[in-house]
Amino acid sequence: MIELVQAVLQGSRRALARLLTAVENGQADPALAALFPHTGRAQVIGITGAPGTGKSSLVNAITKAYRAQGLQVAIIAVDPTSPFTGGAILGDRIRMRDHAGDSGVFIRSMATRGSLGGLARATRDVIRVMDAAGFEVILVETVGAGQSEVDIARAAQTTLVIEAPGLGDDVQAIKAGILEIADVLVVNKADRPGATNTVRALKAMLDLGHPASRSATTRHHGRVMTVERHTLDHGDESVWIPPVIETIATSDSPEGSKGITELLETIQAHQAFLATGDTRRKQERQRLEIELYDRLQHEFMERLRRTIPRTMFEDLLQRIQAREIDPQAAVTLLLDAQLSASEGL
Amino acid sequence: MIELVQAVLQGSRRALARLLTAVENGQADPALAALFPHTGRAQVIGITGAPGTGKSSLVNAITKAYRAQGLQVAIIAVDPTSPFTGGAILGDRIRMRDHAGDSGVFIRSMATRGSLGGLARATRDVIRVMDAAGFEVILVETVGAGQSEVDIARAAQTTLVIEAPGLGDDVQAIKAGILEIADVLVVNKADRPGATNTVRALKAMLDLGHPASRSATTRHHGRVMTVERHTLDHGDESVWIPPVIETIATSDSPEGSKGITELLETIQAHQAFLATGDTRRKQERQRLEIELYDRLQHEFMERLRRTIPRTMFEDLLQRIQAREIDPQAAVTLLLDAQLSASEGL
Repeated sequence: MIELVQAVLQGSRRALARLLTAVENGQADPALAALFPHTGRAQVIGITGAPGTGKSSLVNAITKAYRAQGLQVAIIAVDPTSPFTGGAILGDRIRMRDHAGDSGVFIRSMATRGSLGGLARATRDVIRVMDAAGFEVILVETVGAGQSEVDIARAAQTTLVIEAPGLGDDVQAIKAGILEIADVLVVNKADRPGATNTVRALKAMLDLGHPASRSATTRHHGRVMTVERHTLDHGDESVWIPPVIETIATSDSPEGSKGITELLETIQAHQAFLATGDTRRKQERQRLEIELYDRLQHEFMERLRRTIPRTMFEDLLQRIQAREIDPQAAVTLLLDAQLSASEGL
Repeated sequence: MIELVQAVLQGSRRALARLLTAVENGQADPALAALFPHTGRAQVIGITGAPGTGKSSLVNAITKAYRAQGLQVAIIAVDPTSPFTGGAILGDRIRMRDHAGDSGVFIRSMATRGSLGGLARATRDVIRVMDAAGFEVILVETVGAGQSEVDIARAAQTTLVIEAPGLGDDVQAIKAGILEIADVLVVNKADRPGATNTVRALKAMLDLGHPASRSATTRHHGRVMTVERHTLDHGDESVWIPPVIETIATSDSPEGSKGITELLETIQAHQAFLATGDTRRKQERQRLEIELYDRLQHEFMERLRRTIPRTMFEDLLQRIQAREIDPQAAVTLLLDAQLSASEGL
């Protein structure tokens, strides 16, 4: 395992692929521990949005733009929906074709395996391996909408939420929950009819959700471009107002893409915002805290399964189902049993 | 608390409302334990689907139909998206108006408070209180799409997934994940253009996702109406193939609703399917097992927070952020510290 770690740190793509498989199978704890001191350097960008927003093409266009700057890019495509979705795989094929032979791009797909919690955990670990392997930019793409995205987006420093015109007349409600995780809102397919309405609707929702942005739009009229323009001073703490950027990213003719430069500048502005004061450190700390709790629960359950005989679980479940004891009482019994078992060791 | 429980069991709506507030605030463990033996009798029906599918109007129409059968109906409207969504509240107002003065209908809204896990837990407890309070039918309505729905739908015996025509050309991918939790698929707004296409698309996806259904459609040509028609014998285990039902549910003229009778018959057929053999018992057992693990983790974290000084968490987080130790090593330290503290008690 330590040889594998060394090879990954030295840039071997083959070792990287092998280690990632071990990580996904939950068999790489020592390697992750060894790599951990080498993490925390990459720009991690989350990209999320409903199917049909052209997310994959946009990821493709962003990758090309970063490659043009000479940066190494890792793409992690996470599909929290069931294996019977084909979207991610299709997107991958297009990507594979476009970046074939470029060793500065590394693509990894992750599909649901068992629980969503397991997927979020594995995603976090895969990001860390990519980070330690020296990728300067890590793009984490997720499909679907809802809590799964929130969980996965949490691993990113800058989260782009992608919208597109014409995806239904009242998808507004679902956008609300998603808006809260957005650092940058992207209206892709901006050449389609209705794009202006989508931009307007998003700005209206931002106004609604973020009272501070109201004064921002009063104060700053022009297009939002620089750090100063989308941060607001609230005493000594500045606030980031998610800007709305229009893009056109087509997989057919990547040359026909528009708005990508502005999008990259906005991501840069957000990263610069994070770098001011304590923001980035606080963001990282908050995520590490969430991760610590998640790992604690996971490890606790693993130990419980090793300590308590399966028959005790079975017996308690039977008694709960017979309404002889309530679930909370069963929890107390199990925790007491675990404690006794641990003391006996 | 015991007086409150007695009042709830005797049918007091005021006591019910008070107890539900206590449950939502996590302050009703003894009451929940006392009510637990009185649970397991209600039909719990989950209703889920994207915004814009007319879900609330459908819940309304279903409620009226059950009321016409003389059954008492509880509606739990769960909004796993942020508080800044207004949808659930609007839907509630329409419902409140339609069922005003009918003591056989009880409506409770639940919004996100803190974590999604907390919401799923609270929803489960609220369902149990309603069940013990004597409601024969409990409708659990959720908005959004994704893991949150899966979690909340898990509390229901029969889950309806609502679709509607014209909500975008490629929402198919997102439907895939949702399809797996559907016992009945409803195409609402069936008078809208494109309804036939939506029905066809859903049936095609069912064929894809559930190979057994292919033989089903070969064997049974007519409309799916009875238990026999949508179950397939696989050795001694029968399989339920989700039927696709078309409905029109309008809040403007509930009399203009169509397909509701067929929908109720289909729900009945699914409940009858669950009642055959061991199916319902197995379903309940599986859910109780998931609940038990969830409660174990929750209680473990509560105990950990009481045992380990906050300063130890702070210190470890600082060392993780400084890359002095990795998160998994911190977990081991914390669990060892908890064990020592427990032994010292």
